[in-house]
Order: sequence, then C-alpha cells, then structure tokens
Amino acid sequence: MIYMDNAATSYPKPSVVLDALWEAVERCGNPGRGAHSLSVWAGEKVLETRENIARLFHVQDASRIAFTQNATHALNIAVHLCYGEILTTSMDHNSVLRPCAKRGYYRIVSGDYNGHLSPDQIVSAIGDMTGAVIMTHASNVTGEIYEIEPIAKACRKRGILFILDCAQSAGTVDLNLEKVPADIVCITGHKGLFGLQGTGAVYVAPHVPISPFMSGGTGTNTFDLTHPNQMPECFEAGTVNTHGIATLCAGVEYVLDCGISAIRKKESALRSYFQQELVKIPGVTIYGDGSNCAYTGVLSINVLGKDPGMLANYLASKEICVRAGFHCAPLAHDTIGTKSLGGTVRFSLNHLNTVDEIDVVISYIKEFCKNL
Amino acid sequence: MIYMDNAATSYPKPSVVLDALWEAVERCGNPGRGAHSLSVWAGEKVLETRENIARLFHVQDASRIAFTQNATHALNIAVHLCYGEILTTSMDHNSVLRPCAKRGYYRIVSGDYNGHLSPDQIVSAIGDMTGAVIMTHASNVTGEIYEIEPIAKACRKRGILFILDCAQSAGTVDLNLEKVPADIVCITGHKGLFGLQGTGAVYVAPHVPISPFMSGGTGTNTFDLTHPNQMPECFEAGTVNTHGIATLCAGVEYVLDCGISAIRKKESALRSYFQQELVKIPGVTIYGDGSNCAYTGVLSINVLGKDPGMLANYLASKEICVRAGFHCAPLAHDTIGTKSLGGTVRFSLNHLNTVDEIDVVISYIKEFCKNL
Repeated sequence: MIYMDNAATSYPKPSVVLDALWEAVERCGNPGRGAHSLSVWAGEKVLETRENIARLFHVQDASRIAFTQNATHALNIAVHLCYGEILTTSMDHNSVLRPCAKRGYYRIVSGDYNGHLSPDQIVSAIGDMTGAVIMTHASNVTGEIYEIEPIAKACRKRGILFILDCAQSAGTVDLNLEKVPADIVCITGHKGLFGLQGTGAVYVAPHVPISPFMSGGTGTNTFDLTHPNQMPECFEAGTVNTHGIATLCAGVEYVLDCGISAIRKKESALRSYFQQELVKIPGVTIYGDGSNCAYTGVLSINVLGKDPGMLANYLASKEICVRAGFHCAPLAHDTIGTKSLGGTVRFSLNHLNTVDEIDVVISYIKEFCKNL
Repeated sequence: MIYMDNAATSYPKPSVVLDALWEAVERCGNPGRGAHSLSVWAGEKVLETRENIARLFHVQDASRIAFTQNATHALNIAVHLCYGEILTTSMDHNSVLRPCAKRGYYRIVSGDYNGHLSPDQIVSAIGDMTGAVIMTHASNVTGEIYEIEPIAKACRKRGILFILDCAQSAGTVDLNLEKVPADIVCITGHKGLFGLQGTGAVYVAPHVPISPFMSGGTGTNTFDLTHPNQMPECFEAGTVNTHGIATLCAGVEYVLDCGISAIRKKESALRSYFQQELVKIPGVTIYGDGSNCAYTGVLSINVLGKDPGMLANYLASKEICVRAGFHCAPLAHDTIGTKSLGGTVRFSLNHLNTVDEIDVVISYIKEFCKNL
C-alpha cells in the first residue's frame, strides 16, 4: 500500500508514537488531582506534552496551550474569542468558514486562480471594524504555505487578533511565535504531529481576553459554579484525551528530533519531484503555480476534466491512498476553478514517503490516462 | 497495584479493547469520504460503534448518536439544546452544573443527607416554565443509582426534555430507552464502557429540535457554509477520534458480551462486601444509607474527620489507587455534609475488582486508623 493522504490523517505513525501509546495504556489514569501513581503519570504526561508543543512553537508559557478534540474545536474556540469583524480567506477550510458564518460579521479575501493569497491584499482589506484576521497557514487543497509574517505583524500593529489555522502546517512548517506575532494558533495532533485522532490544541497569547467555551469539571475551584477563566483550564472541560495526548507528546518529540527544516526539505523535494513527473503527463492539470511559492507535501491535480473520484478510485484499487473531492474547502474551488469539476485529486505526502512510491503512483496515473 | 478509581477512568482496559486499538493503529485512516481502504475502514468502524451504542441503549436509529470528546462535551451540547428553565439536582457533577450556571435560568433540587434524590420531589419541582430536567443517572460521590423512570415519564407527559448524564452508569446500569423515555443521553467512553479517554457520545431523540454546537468540516454539503443540521453530523465537527472510537466499539461489545445484569450483580456484590467490612472499622463513616437504594461500585467514606487526602495518600503509598476530595460535585458535599471535611475518600470498583483486593484495602484502612 502507498499512503498519500497525510493531509487527512498521517499514516503510519512512527514507532516512538506507538511505544508511547502502549505505555499510556499501561500507565494512564485520569489526569485529575488523584494522588495515585496512574493519575500522577497522566497529569505529568499532559504537562510534558504542553511543554513539547510550547517548544515546537517557541512559546514561553506552556500553560497558554489547551488541549482540544481536533483543530476544528480549537478554531471554534478562536472564533468564540473574536470581537468585531472577522477577515478570512477563500482558501480556508470549513473549520474556519463555518464558525465564521455561524457567528456572522465576517468578510472573505479571495486568493488568485492559483490559490495564492497576497499578504498585501489581506492587510489592505483590514477595516476600521476588523477585530481579527483568521487564516490557514497552508492550503489543504494546493499545499501553498502562506506568507503570514507580514499579516501577523500588521495585525499586532493595529491591535487586532491574528489567528492561525495550522492544521496543515504544524510539524511540517516552522512557526516561531517569537518572530511571528500570532495571537491564537490552532493545531491538530493527528496529521504532521503524528498523534492519534482525537487530539488538537489551541495556543492563546497572554494578552488575549479569554472566556470559557465549554464548561465542566476541571478539578480546580470545584465550588465555583463558573468555569475557570484561566489557561489552560478555561478550554479544557472534563477529562482530556490523555491516551491521545501521550501519542502527541511522542509525535512532537519525533518532529523536533527529525528537525522541522529537515522535514520541510524532504517534503519539498518529494513534491518537486512528483510535480516534475506529473507535468510530463499530457492532460494532467496541477493546481498552484509551483514556482514562486513554498508548498507542503500537498498537491492537487485533475486529469482531462474527469471527475476526480475516477482517478482516486482507480488508485484505491491499486492500494494507493489519495483523496478526491472538495476537501471541505468550498471557496478554494471557486478560487482555483475546480468547483464544476468536482474538486481535485489530492496527493498529500509527508517526509516518510519515497521517490519510489512516487514513481509507482506516476506509472498508475499514466496508465489511467492511457485507458481514458 | 490495586485500582479502585474506575469512576475517574477504568483501568485496566480489557484485552479485546487493546486488540481493537492495535487494529485501529494498523488500519485507521480518516473516516471521511475517501475511497481508499484505510478511510473506508475508519468510516465503517465509526458506524459499527454507533450501532453498538444503539444496541446498548435500545435505540432504533443509530444515526441519533453523535461522538463527542467526553461526557462534558455531550452535556454542553445537551444544555445548548435546552429551552425554558432547567431543573437539575444537587447530586450533579460540575459537567452539568457549570453549563447550567453559564446559561442561567436553572433551579436545583436537593438530595437528602444520604445523597438520595426523590423522584416525587423532582417531578413536583417541575414548574410551568421548566423546559428540561437534567440529572445524573448515578452519583459519582455516593454511587447511588437514581430512580429515573418516573421522572422521565413525567417529563415526556409534560412535553419537556429529560436529559440523563450517564457518565457513571453507562456500561454498569441498564438503560433501555424503549422503556425510559429520555430525550438526550450523555455518555463517556472511558469509564464503564472501557474505551480510551477522548471518547464520549450524545444520543438525541428524533423529536428533539437540534442546532449545531460547534461548526466545521463534515464531509457533507461542503458548499453550504451553514453547519449541517442533521444527526449525527450536527454535533460532529472535524475529524472524530476514530482510534478512540474503535476502542469504544470493542468496549461496548465487551459489556454486551458480559451482560449488563451480570456486571451489575458483580459490582453490587463487591460493594456490599466492601461496605460490610467497612462498617466493622470504628471511626469510618460511609456516605449513602446503603439499604433501600441501588448502588454502582462507587463508595465514599471518611475516617474520624480526617482530611480525605491523608487516607488516599496512605493508600497510594501502598499502591492502592483511590481518589480523595470533592470529585467535581460541589453541591453533593453540601448535601451529604462533607464540604467542611474536604470531601470524601472515594473507592470506585468495577466488576474486574476482587474480594481479595477488597480484603487488602480493608486491612490497610484498619492499619491507617490504628496509626491515627
């Protein structure tokens, strides 16, 4: 089997992550205030994971990171913390667009036909009533890594929130919060950070006013019927996913050990090679211009205007895992012109994929084209 | 090690649950609409789990069950669906009390000094403006299993919601929704159902008006920026915890195979034996009257007015896992008179505990009392 659906969930997980899972199954109690060894182990593991994530993003105070069910949960919290008008982009996922639409009072900046977002355009779209800019760090359709630093700095200068959706970038694109002044960062644990599903986190900068999203037991201030308003408890109601968090702990450590720059370099090389081979196949359209922009391991194509599902199903029959459709990013398809085509066929590689795998996939794509 | 903290999280997990976890790690993609084998496996596993939970509660339509991060998440959804005044009880957990307090317009019915809740009292507290009764199926402090059927029936008769928090009862107390007309049922996956942490679910009866709680990608109606308003997508935004859900699937199957009545019988016998031995120790106070009521495996005590943490720490030093404190149920301690004592020492047994373990624990409690 060849797996190229890492933008949906990474597979397989590194062995250190599985080791961490087995350990959690052996040792994990409820990370409450229990005095017994399993409870203490769980509490320490949650803390260690917070610290690993803080290390990844150069965050000084790990308590500013709260664990969530997934990136969507983190983004719902982020939108809940917004004030004023929200500015977002056409390249964003429904995990951003739908919370914005539910809340109302938002505006969308469109990317160009390559799915490229111009920082200048976004900054100049900020209006007097804008209270937050929320956008993806990297497109889950084209794979483009957006130039966020100037946008984050412009937001900070104006005193408005800059919220970053790192679902596609955490673990594969460096984000140093000492340099990029993002106010809220939303991540998932089961993609580039190699944890199990059911994991995610939200980082909230110290100056951002917070208020609880869900309410429940926290093990703190038990007699106060108001949910605590300090990080991280503010956004952690009830038992967290300690088993999953233990895998995320190991996954982040794995990423830090590999080195984000090494991971980036490998993914970039694999994607370039893949693209270079794809352009040789007549009838293949690649989305994103691929020249002046940086990309993750995500690459979207279509073949001769055929329904993307056809190629994805063909590849599935050859035990190659890719994804066809809209990838939950509706406006991105308006932007790059793939709405009427049924979306794209998305290949999402990570640094564990190989050139040999790409060669096999290319040969099957050629085969598919030949038989059309 | 002797583990008696199953009301916080069950430990250890049955081997069939671990087998299911290993399988998920091997085969689990993102349960979206991917055509490839890992994605299909994940989608089918999520569906199978829904069906197992439906079987457990005698629910006809499994799509009425949505997966959540934990019981707290499910209860926040439940409170979000309430209209009018909410009636709850002093024996409820902060996962009920805090969402009610945040929303406002709620009233609390108090239990007696044993933590007993009278169905008559609750039913007669229902007022003209009451839109929902929300209460725990079993106390996480005293272990009492409440007589919910008359309350559920009274609510149904009046056309108001009956919402049941089954965090402490799912898997250990039978709940047949064909007999008990509960409108919303909230469960956790990592206690009596033996799944991993990060799992939970909410059942919403077909006649209950719903609206999304969180918004995000669902893989359905991608071009609609309004989050879908049908079950289960309405309450499942973003990637669910498929790895955890796979363990919950096996856990529910395990419970169904054991038989809820056999589990109940075993827990009941263990608790009775434990209680019978405890009453022989001078200075031990047991909370809950233990005569006319049914109990889960939860039992709370105090020793000679000492801080509960002292006994819990002593037992922890002997590798015995119990929990001291308020157990996130503040008003329960007002009710049973343990607030000023610092709460209780809680022993929570499940059917995997043994009489031999109880004997060891009893001997250490005696030892502790002797050394006071």
